[in-house]
Amino acid sequence: MIFTQLSTPTLLLEKEKLIANISRMQASADRLGVQLRPHLKTMKAARAAELLIASGASGITVSTLKEADYFLEHGFRDITYAVGMVPAKLAEAASLMARGADLKIMTDNPEVAQVIATDANRNGINYKLLIEVDCGDNRGGLQPESDELMQIAALIENSAAHFQGILTHAGHSYAVNTISAVERIAEQEREAVVHAATRLREAGFTVDTVSLGSTPTALYAKDLTGVTELRAGVYTVFDLDQQSRGVCATEEIALSVLSCVIGHNQAAGKILLDAGGLALSKDRSADKFRPELGYGQICNPDGSIIPELYVTSVSQEHGHVRIRDESDYALFPVGSYLRILPIHACMTAAAYDHFNVIENGVVAEQWDRVNGW
Amino acid sequence: MIFTQLSTPTLLLEKEKLIANISRMQASADRLGVQLRPHLKTMKAARAAELLIASGASGITVSTLKEADYFLEHGFRDITYAVGMVPAKLAEAASLMARGADLKIMTDNPEVAQVIATDANRNGINYKLLIEVDCGDNRGGLQPESDELMQIAALIENSAAHFQGILTHAGHSYAVNTISAVERIAEQEREAVVHAATRLREAGFTVDTVSLGSTPTALYAKDLTGVTELRAGVYTVFDLDQQSRGVCATEEIALSVLSCVIGHNQAAGKILLDAGGLALSKDRSADKFRPELGYGQICNPDGSIIPELYVTSVSQEHGHVRIRDESDYALFPVGSYLRILPIHACMTAAAYDHFNVIENGVVAEQWDRVNGW
Repeated sequence: MIFTQLSTPTLLLEKEKLIANISRMQASADRLGVQLRPHLKTMKAARAAELLIASGASGITVSTLKEADYFLEHGFRDITYAVGMVPAKLAEAASLMARGADLKIMTDNPEVAQVIATDANRNGINYKLLIEVDCGDNRGGLQPESDELMQIAALIENSAAHFQGILTHAGHSYAVNTISAVERIAEQEREAVVHAATRLREAGFTVDTVSLGSTPTALYAKDLTGVTELRAGVYTVFDLDQQSRGVCATEEIALSVLSCVIGHNQAAGKILLDAGGLALSKDRSADKFRPELGYGQICNPDGSIIPELYVTSVSQEHGHVRIRDESDYALFPVGSYLRILPIHACMTAAAYDHFNVIENGVVAEQWDRVNGW
Repeated sequence: MIFTQLSTPTLLLEKEKLIANISRMQASADRLGVQLRPHLKTMKAARAAELLIASGASGITVSTLKEADYFLEHGFRDITYAVGMVPAKLAEAASLMARGADLKIMTDNPEVAQVIATDANRNGINYKLLIEVDCGDNRGGLQPESDELMQIAALIENSAAHFQGILTHAGHSYAVNTISAVERIAEQEREAVVHAATRLREAGFTVDTVSLGSTPTALYAKDLTGVTELRAGVYTVFDLDQQSRGVCATEEIALSVLSCVIGHNQAAGKILLDAGGLALSKDRSADKFRPELGYGQICNPDGSIIPELYVTSVSQEHGHVRIRDESDYALFPVGSYLRILPIHACMTAAAYDHFNVIENGVVAEQWDRVNGW
């Protein structure tokens, strides 16, 4: 199938780049001597998980229980749900385990741990619990020095549930744009979990899993002594957000949105595309270091970059492209196709229920994705 | 069904407010003496379209051909596709017409008009074409003074297709925050289409449809002499973007996201919710006039506003809420429910495949929605 047989806007995935990106991260995990548990929040696709496992991944990470359900349905059992558990979702977790999932859940809250322990005892369910630690990202997690760390581990170990270990995420590695800064954050991430693990072990707890990761720190960490596994997700396809921080090259970005030119507003100096805020997302993560990118970098249908042509603004179903000069109207007539590299792959991909997978320049197959909750 | 039986994050729709909003706009159209063709890009739900038609709407507007297909499947035939047509989508439009759709399509481009005329002649299809006019929004559309207006009308009228009329959208009415400014833009919007229609009629063309609209101008236009129909969409549920511009009251917002507290990061001064960038969207349209709103206003489960509590930042599946003071942790324990009013309803709703429809404080039914392309 060639591109012009696709209905636009639609999502393109270059398989060769995907496979190269998967290999690059697996090599990083191998070099650092840790297991890789890729985060499927970006791809949300069973076919991508197959490639990741084939490349050496030890299991998968998910961001919703709906993803866990989807991947279990497709035969993936070893799953970490890396978003804080709440009592209302425990029955769904138990149901996944009853269907064969080796599910790890997570909290940083003693009251939730108490609910998990009580439920484990009452229903004889061996929940595997990770405690979330905050390594400086200021999202979820306890401080490595906190008393609650011991409190949660004790609550779980004294119940029918199992204390599995600790987990952190250096999301603040997205806020810098030099490798040396990423290296410093990677060491901070490692120190946080290793310190927490050491305290727990000194208190007599077994800590099987010491898990960390983010795409930048996973690629550029110098040493992960004391860590058992890496988690990362967006590296599978990369995006302009990562490129703007120096984490990847533009040529490594495997995802793009195929779009059609739907109008020329010559009075306003604009080309209009049929990919707007819904098709691209309104994510502006690349603004900090490359604000000129707007809502995406425009490429030719073959994927080659068109210099200085960006989606400069969006409405719901329109991408607005400020022309470079009047000759752009002839270069990009109404009805012609353009590809757009996404600012943030996870946000853009979530608007689509499938990938059009490109091999040798043609759409070779379609991969389904799971969205929603 | 009560809220705590829903899996979070999920979308809540208050039916009484929806009905009141629908009545408010229908009354505006009636007062102005024009037909109302609501834009279903916000609701994307057949059950909402039923209420709109029952309230007096003359037909519907859609933003994708997938929406057109969905609404046709549900018995709605009178459909305007208000995004620029491209040659590659013409076969799909013809197929919808063959299935019984009274479909109006649109362009502002003479080359596309030529393709439509040729296809109409070759295949005997009576495409109904609207010409898009730019009234100052600088999105799609020809200037009312342009020669291409006559050129396109002539191309179509000299073919088997039908020249239906003209259409504009005053999207720039979202850029102001006083009713007097909206009134001025509404008059500018009216003048643009009336001027274009007058020129076309003077040149001998019949102009059946003179269509305009945006939620602000549709509600506050003082006079629509020469106009035949209004289009608007977000008014059905409103949102904080509209509230920040003075177009609606907070109490009129009918849409919210039900979310669960998944963690307290006391070291960072934050409450974490399970509604993040995917569940809320990353739209920041309200920033211009109410930047404090962040990614949404937080409410109690009953819908009452919690003063000065907002989603201050988001990651993919986390909403970060800066606490007002330490007492917020006790007020909003982990596992408790909160509702979030959306910044931009169209963007937020698109993450969900259904609405949980609330009547008398309980979820009375679920309405399906259509997403994607």
